[in-house]
Amino acid sequence: MWQYKTSVVWKDGKIGESHSSGNLPIEMSTPPDFGGPRNRWSPEQLLTSSVAACIMTTALFFFEKGGVELHSYMSNATGTMEKTSQGLSITKMQIDVTVTSQSAEQEALVRRAMKSAKKNCPISNALKCPVEMRLQVESVEAS
Amino acid sequence: MWQYKTSVVWKDGKIGESHSSGNLPIEMSTPPDFGGPRNRWSPEQLLTSSVAACIMTTALFFFEKGGVELHSYMSNATGTMEKTSQGLSITKMQIDVTVTSQSAEQEALVRRAMKSAKKNCPISNALKCPVEMRLQVESVEAS
Repeated sequence: MWQYKTSVVWKDGKIGESHSSGNLPIEMSTPPDFGGPRNRWSPEQLLTSSVAACIMTTALFFFEKGGVELHSYMSNATGTMEKTSQGLSITKMQIDVTVTSQSAEQEALVRRAMKSAKKNCPISNALKCPVEMRLQVESVEAS
Repeated sequence: MWQYKTSVVWKDGKIGESHSSGNLPIEMSTPPDFGGPRNRWSPEQLLTSSVAACIMTTALFFFEKGGVELHSYMSNATGTMEKTSQGLSITKMQIDVTVTSQSAEQEALVRRAMKSAKKNCPISNALKCPVEMRLQVESVEAS
């Protein structure tokens, strides 16, 4: 069993700060669409980020296991919230990942590792809504 | 419909950086228990944080609606991950909230607002696992 601890303290207005031992604090607030200021992480952005981060860290595990030599990895993620009969609900996570490996021969390994990452990401699996991934695989040689 | 966008870029080793327009970037990594460095936000801490942050921002909405004059708000949250037959799973979120209002008469209003916040928090509701809240209500007068 693993446990992850964090604290949130209200600062002022719609702004708070999130702490976790040893990490830089994160200033967060209600999203601008709901009356919060700009330039702060909203809970919804943090959630979307946690999914994207978890897919990356899980992928790094499978890249290592599968012998992928990574050149670059980046992803854009979008979390969607909608008004439903149950109130505001997170209805979808879309994640677009671009992975560049060191050689064209590794592209198949990358695809296999990303498939495992998507399937085994504990945070994607913790959500009720679908998590959809689009994957683009490139290599330094081919570009 | 509301959309929340974020990007994650791999930096080196087990470390990445998460961005979202206008916000300070968050350095994140694989948790130390799984081979990552210390002093970075893990995806699991970000998830736990998003739940705690969302309960706070939802509470702020209901405090305003219910006429609560807030003195302070803080919460400690713990996310639990376990190995299950489906692999690593987030099995529980525990959140301990302490709210201090300006006057003892407001304590009932605080309790009602927190009950609504717990029920309506879109991120708690997005998770498959139980989210348990313990609430302590105080007031400046009483302390």
